[in-house]
Amino acid sequence: MSKALPKRSENYSEWYNEIVKRADLAENSAVRGCMIIKPYGYAIWEKMQRALDDMFKATGHQNAYFPLFVPKSFLEKEEEHAEGFAKECAVVTHYRLKANPDGKGLVVDPNAKLEEELIIRPTSETVIWNAYKGWIQSWRDLPLLINQWANVVRWEMRTRLFLRTTEFLWQEGHTAHATEAEAVEETEKMLGVYADFAENWMAMPVVKGLKTPGERFAGAVETYCIEALMQDGKALQSGTSHFLGQNFARSFDVQFVNKENKLEYAWATSWGVSTRLMGALIMAHSDDKGLVLPPRLAPIQVVIVPIYKSEEDLAKISEAVNPIFEELKAAGISVKYDDSDNQRSGWKFAEYELKGVPVRLGLGMRDLENGSIEVARRDNLTKESRPLEGIVEYVTNLLDEIQANIYQKAARFRQENTFRIDTWDEFKERIEKGGFISAHWDGTAETEEKIKEETKATIRCIPLDAPEEEGTDIYSGKPSTKRVIFAKAY
Amino acid sequence: MSKALPKRSENYSEWYNEIVKRADLAENSAVRGCMIIKPYGYAIWEKMQRALDDMFKATGHQNAYFPLFVPKSFLEKEEEHAEGFAKECAVVTHYRLKANPDGKGLVVDPNAKLEEELIIRPTSETVIWNAYKGWIQSWRDLPLLINQWANVVRWEMRTRLFLRTTEFLWQEGHTAHATEAEAVEETEKMLGVYADFAENWMAMPVVKGLKTPGERFAGAVETYCIEALMQDGKALQSGTSHFLGQNFARSFDVQFVNKENKLEYAWATSWGVSTRLMGALIMAHSDDKGLVLPPRLAPIQVVIVPIYKSEEDLAKISEAVNPIFEELKAAGISVKYDDSDNQRSGWKFAEYELKGVPVRLGLGMRDLENGSIEVARRDNLTKESRPLEGIVEYVTNLLDEIQANIYQKAARFRQENTFRIDTWDEFKERIEKGGFISAHWDGTAETEEKIKEETKATIRCIPLDAPEEEGTDIYSGKPSTKRVIFAKAY
Repeated sequence: MSKALPKRSENYSEWYNEIVKRADLAENSAVRGCMIIKPYGYAIWEKMQRALDDMFKATGHQNAYFPLFVPKSFLEKEEEHAEGFAKECAVVTHYRLKANPDGKGLVVDPNAKLEEELIIRPTSETVIWNAYKGWIQSWRDLPLLINQWANVVRWEMRTRLFLRTTEFLWQEGHTAHATEAEAVEETEKMLGVYADFAENWMAMPVVKGLKTPGERFAGAVETYCIEALMQDGKALQSGTSHFLGQNFARSFDVQFVNKENKLEYAWATSWGVSTRLMGALIMAHSDDKGLVLPPRLAPIQVVIVPIYKSEEDLAKISEAVNPIFEELKAAGISVKYDDSDNQRSGWKFAEYELKGVPVRLGLGMRDLENGSIEVARRDNLTKESRPLEGIVEYVTNLLDEIQANIYQKAARFRQENTFRIDTWDEFKERIEKGGFISAHWDGTAETEEKIKEETKATIRCIPLDAPEEEGTDIYSGKPSTKRVIFAKAY
Repeated sequence: MSKALPKRSENYSEWYNEIVKRADLAENSAVRGCMIIKPYGYAIWEKMQRALDDMFKATGHQNAYFPLFVPKSFLEKEEEHAEGFAKECAVVTHYRLKANPDGKGLVVDPNAKLEEELIIRPTSETVIWNAYKGWIQSWRDLPLLINQWANVVRWEMRTRLFLRTTEFLWQEGHTAHATEAEAVEETEKMLGVYADFAENWMAMPVVKGLKTPGERFAGAVETYCIEALMQDGKALQSGTSHFLGQNFARSFDVQFVNKENKLEYAWATSWGVSTRLMGALIMAHSDDKGLVLPPRLAPIQVVIVPIYKSEEDLAKISEAVNPIFEELKAAGISVKYDDSDNQRSGWKFAEYELKGVPVRLGLGMRDLENGSIEVARRDNLTKESRPLEGIVEYVTNLLDEIQANIYQKAARFRQENTFRIDTWDEFKERIEKGGFISAHWDGTAETEEKIKEETKATIRCIPLDAPEEEGTDIYSGKPSTKRVIFAKAY
């Protein structure tokens, strides 16, 4: 630990960047907009992957892998989709380099030009639906419930570690169904899986809702999303689930014989979450001392730090620590005993706080004499002395308590920063300070656009649980039947 | 199941292709040389990944993720490396498409040309060592033991599902060390991990050895490999581990302060296995009925098929199956009960044989009356009737027996097809029939090349356990001190 972190309240953006860097989560690479996910950051992502993958499998999905390259002609097939992604495509035009005839190094070999350019997948609907044409003949082949874990590339001009990068890691589910109702059900089910994951693993409350037509995925009939509120009052879209209707089935001619023995186009969904969730996780919970990780996603859940002066003391402490360490491990807890001798315990305390380790156990000679151990919680930064006896059970329960507390804190924050607003003046004033604004919208793209122009706020979603309620649009004054969520967003 | 598979003995190549296709492992995509890994094939790959990943972590490695793109200038930095990969590079030259001004569709936007071309990684030494420059300052930062799971692209002209594809999935370990001895030790340790995995998970015996200088990885000081023998008598390189010396540290200027307080270049290793292992697995064990999977890598280890005529019978059978199914699951066995009603049991038997499911349990009304169940082994195609009582324990042990038997069969095959040969005439005759040939080599690239020209055989490796033995080169007649392994190879 060198100097302190920037304060969250003073420079949120710098605070975020510094946490990512100093907690060793990720860094920028030499290629503009592409990040390197460092081991500690990747370990968190692996935990996310494992949890999500288990949930996908529990809901009947299988993993597969489709090619990185999308032929340009595929992208062109679904018109809206093509339009939506054309501007951010990395394009492969050649397949060979050769020695530079004019000097040193390598140059692109002009004789190795591809007949048709290949796009690095920005998403895989086109490649996958082209394959599905061969896989789907009869209603008996449906539903087809497939997911892939992959890297994708969307050329971004303004990037930010985890939140917006040119290359990112994600999962994309692509399912095919015999009926519209079943596809809609799947779209909603997977939104539910995402919300479940966000709340129960990431400890991050989310609003489930529908995007407005202007914010839909390119090629979707309906886009569902989960939206979370970050500590600076901005919204972060954390996952999307799309009902694609028969758009891609038509573009790639995927027809099947239904139970009535008639040819019909298949119904589609797609859904994804990405390494952007890492950004959400960091921004939702962290504080001025660094990262705060919910125990279920923490690579190290408990760290044990010995406090000693002599080698003899360390030996005695280690002797007491060993059985606790083994018991914690046996209880399925990821625990680290840091007896490294090149840093003092104070440095270690700060380092593990920075890295968001949920529980720190400190053991010194006086503790040993008293048969006690110091337990420090990362979430609320409290410390207490506990008897050594029964410490494993205590810590096991404490991890659950911390998981719940982090969620409750975030839920409280969201509650305190969600505002029902009914006048345009109030809206303009409030939106500058951040938070979710629940307000009436007349349902037109025109009003949505005007509000965005004047305030930079967007409609994050039309909440699925929004009650029917008569009102007037916050901006146009026209009649409205529902409140929607407005916010400035990442 | 439609018609039978081509016979392995008659058309090995077609037999392989048809197994891959009909067992639903993979298929070619619309992009030349790129494959789609289908769910059943991917489930096997996931089991491989999980086992390998656990072994990497048990040996102290951490996962991370580095960018897909390699700037052209990075590739140029290590000369041999650049030369080795230049001819198979997919090159990104532009980052945007636009609407075709002359008509329909999209065209590459000439205004979005990259200043420096980006290569899709064929391997990541350059990108990773460029990052290591920032991560390594002192001996305290070493060793750095990192692995990544990723896709890579090497443009291939002649491709084959799993064995040689333009895009493939792999893991690449990249480690940095303070001393040469430690880096060599790491190189050998990881070769050992690969051999362990091949033998104990894939049930595939391998020879551990060194590549000749001509077959080394571009940029390596020494390349270690594991070589396996396929059932057509051809060799398949199944994994490589490279000692890179200080080559990449020099190219990317990665120096550290050693314990003597002097600046020194770091020592490097890299090692990888890929989806090529899927090809090895298929070719090492399968037969004329289809895939044969070792139980430890089988997505479905046990399938239960009811044999019935009426719905009533099915209900009774299912009632008897349920507790067995649950007990097998509780024993950690991956089990499927196939009570689907759209195919007859004979069709199902053939289908699960094709898919290589190690154990099939068949239960009909007569079995029920007798308190027995039919147990069919995929490895040797034997069947027997066993008492229902104790069946779970029996099957649990049987899976271990099958795992061992598949390995032993492959080991026997290799033994019978490894030949010590001492004359050139015998060599030429034998190499046409396939197998590993253990013969003397004079250690020159010239002789190696001549033998390859005349017979298409290559030196697969210089076995690590080859004893010192005086002899004369099989081709040149010059003196030699060791036998090496020759074979035709994939």
